[in-house]
Amino acid sequence: PQYASTGLDVWTMMNQVAASVNAVNLGQGFMSYPPREFIRRAAQEALVENTHNQYAPPRGHPGLLKQVGIHFANRLARPIDVSSELSIHAGANEALLSVFTAFLEHGKDQEVILMEPAFDQYTPNIIMAGGKPVYVPLRVQSGDKDPSKDVISSHDWKLDMSELEAAINENTRIIVVNTPHNPIGKVFSREELEQIGDIAARHNLLIIADEVYEHLTYGVDHISIATLPGMWERTVTVGSAGKMFGVTGWRVGWSVGPAELIQPTLSAHTRIVFTSNTPLQEGVASALKLAKENDFLSIQRQEYEHRRNRLMAIFDDVGLPYVVPDGAYYLLVNAAAIKIPSDYSFPDFIEERGPNFKLVYFFIKEFGVSGIPPTEFYSEPHRHLANDYIRFAFCKTDEGLDKAAKCLQSLK
Amino acid sequence: PQYASTGLDVWTMMNQVAASVNAVNLGQGFMSYPPREFIRRAAQEALVENTHNQYAPPRGHPGLLKQVGIHFANRLARPIDVSSELSIHAGANEALLSVFTAFLEHGKDQEVILMEPAFDQYTPNIIMAGGKPVYVPLRVQSGDKDPSKDVISSHDWKLDMSELEAAINENTRIIVVNTPHNPIGKVFSREELEQIGDIAARHNLLIIADEVYEHLTYGVDHISIATLPGMWERTVTVGSAGKMFGVTGWRVGWSVGPAELIQPTLSAHTRIVFTSNTPLQEGVASALKLAKENDFLSIQRQEYEHRRNRLMAIFDDVGLPYVVPDGAYYLLVNAAAIKIPSDYSFPDFIEERGPNFKLVYFFIKEFGVSGIPPTEFYSEPHRHLANDYIRFAFCKTDEGLDKAAKCLQSLK
Ligand SMILES: CSCCC(=O)C(=O)O
Ligand SMILES: CSCCC(=O)C(=O)O
Repeated sequence: PQYASTGLDVWTMMNQVAASVNAVNLGQGFMSYPPREFIRRAAQEALVENTHNQYAPPRGHPGLLKQVGIHFANRLARPIDVSSELSIHAGANEALLSVFTAFLEHGKDQEVILMEPAFDQYTPNIIMAGGKPVYVPLRVQSGDKDPSKDVISSHDWKLDMSELEAAINENTRIIVVNTPHNPIGKVFSREELEQIGDIAARHNLLIIADEVYEHLTYGVDHISIATLPGMWERTVTVGSAGKMFGVTGWRVGWSVGPAELIQPTLSAHTRIVFTSNTPLQEGVASALKLAKENDFLSIQRQEYEHRRNRLMAIFDDVGLPYVVPDGAYYLLVNAAAIKIPSDYSFPDFIEERGPNFKLVYFFIKEFGVSGIPPTEFYSEPHRHLANDYIRFAFCKTDEGLDKAAKCLQSLK
Repeated sequence: PQYASTGLDVWTMMNQVAASVNAVNLGQGFMSYPPREFIRRAAQEALVENTHNQYAPPRGHPGLLKQVGIHFANRLARPIDVSSELSIHAGANEALLSVFTAFLEHGKDQEVILMEPAFDQYTPNIIMAGGKPVYVPLRVQSGDKDPSKDVISSHDWKLDMSELEAAINENTRIIVVNTPHNPIGKVFSREELEQIGDIAARHNLLIIADEVYEHLTYGVDHISIATLPGMWERTVTVGSAGKMFGVTGWRVGWSVGPAELIQPTLSAHTRIVFTSNTPLQEGVASALKLAKENDFLSIQRQEYEHRRNRLMAIFDDVGLPYVVPDGAYYLLVNAAAIKIPSDYSFPDFIEERGPNFKLVYFFIKEFGVSGIPPTEFYSEPHRHLANDYIRFAFCKTDEGLDKAAKCLQSLK
């Protein structure tokens, strides 16, 4: 099948290109700094205690279910029944695959609407589950600002609601809403979410709310679509401990929603991986508890805002415009100004992926700072919309960002 | 879809029944004792080091790839290229799903042959991947011994090779070979594996060798089918750190085979979970290294042989016959002698699953020792073959087994 016969995934590919020139790696969204002491200690203690090394129940380790339940009771301002409205997963990715698997069937032409750019795993996950992805692009509407010359805002990337509605037909089952958005950093406004919710309700569609960056917004509020009137019933919200605590390698995520949606999701999850790892589930449970005492999430948010501002300042300094992210930890830089010499030679695995991969490859090799080609987040017909962009991650140390600043001086 | 709409999985169900009467839990195959100090310490150190908290490459954490490569180079007596012939998974279950996903397609009527009883996750995993499971039962051929009265051997459960061959048609793609076998404890002999391999070769089929209990055999040798002449090319062998080190909650497994088979498996894995958790991959890497120095696997094997003998002695004492397992950590007990009072009342979730679930439920409630209903490992037409059996696990403490012995005295 298509999803099983591709070559290197974009993440591994770009990590390898970065490593080949010892570049500052601002590509994949992993943290280049250690998790807080209290987080690591929480996991270590789980391993000392000796009681957390065997299978957790597929739904999740009871201690973690409890803490995530408390987290969402606050976030969503409603009580969460952790015995039916919550499931723990082996990362948010597996949560997404489980929801798709639960609600799509092969051979039925069921469709799922994605807003492009769309995180690159959605498409193969939908196809695996038997669905057909249908793409509605977020389009830049920046008025008289030219994104190749001017800094624009992430809310200048807009969803055309009539385009969304036009994409819906009798086979449509699900709309995926990713807010804060990877890679744009767009945080959907209440009004936008109301409009999307309204369309979903009118067509009786399910919403998958990928909110793995819920805790990271800058100057705007994150709104969970599940909190809008009538939306809880049709929404599965997906979250990630890896993102929340800066431990992307722990593979602990979750799905929350009404029992009618979570029970089938849990069944799919049980068949896909059976259960997530127990020691780190216990670690995340402690971390969630301690996070509240330490006001961790709000301090972390400030740190990320600082990192975001630092990375924006670096690109201001060298004169490359970007999209100001209101959330998450990615910066889309418009690199149209970078000219690639016509005799520059690319390896085949880059050449065959088109101009955006070439731009990113050239940038990494020439400037020693790595990013991700955002065209990988598009379907073929819309890919050109991102040809000029490079996505950089700022979940990185000050030293890393300083080093990137130095590397980029030659751009001036 | 079918696999997403079932109720409780059998494991969670039986754990709950066991907990409801505080039974000695000999049901699910998790260890009731802590992992060795060196194993836990390996994982703790991975968390102290601070460098193992982010995404591992989808193929696996380099340190673990290296150690598993060494393990299989020894086991399979051939060099393993860990950059193409090995992939790490989020447990052996996800490895199996990845192989099925890589080599089956929806809408093509492709078939996979399972030998029944077959671990209960195979069927939904094959269906998810688009395949159709075809079942060939292992049949008891115990001569003049009556399994409801006499202890028989796990190699009295035989595969009829003509029945296997008759099950193959032009749609057949894969044969799953599980050795040592869960739940029978059968260790397939060289001759049996040669015959299966010969059939696979003649029909150009892939073999998935589920060898998660490879390290646990009693008085016989485990043979990897991949080591037989001509078999490497067509075999993916699946293994499990959880089983090897008694840490079923760590969710680290692997698949090994020729690059042509592992590369698509890796692609599927990358889409299913992206990557397994990093800290415990590092923990398993250290554990594998230290296991060799400590002769851990051979000492552990002796401990399990002792546990097996102890559990067999308990059933000898109370007069219930069983199937002597040559491998793995399960004992199939024939409980035909147990008579359930005709007015005994069962909850609906048991009643609807038939006589074997009722037998197991009754046994747990009456004797305070829990097991698993092996009919769950069968398709409908062959389910009756296991109606009289209960599967007990012996990956449990001496204290647990002692307590079980006491509980079962009332059977005498
Ligand atoms: C598969 S990478 C997961 C998401 C992320 O970290 C990224 O977008 O960089
Ligand atoms: C899904 S349980 C995994 C296998 C096992 O432990 C068992 O068969 O009991």
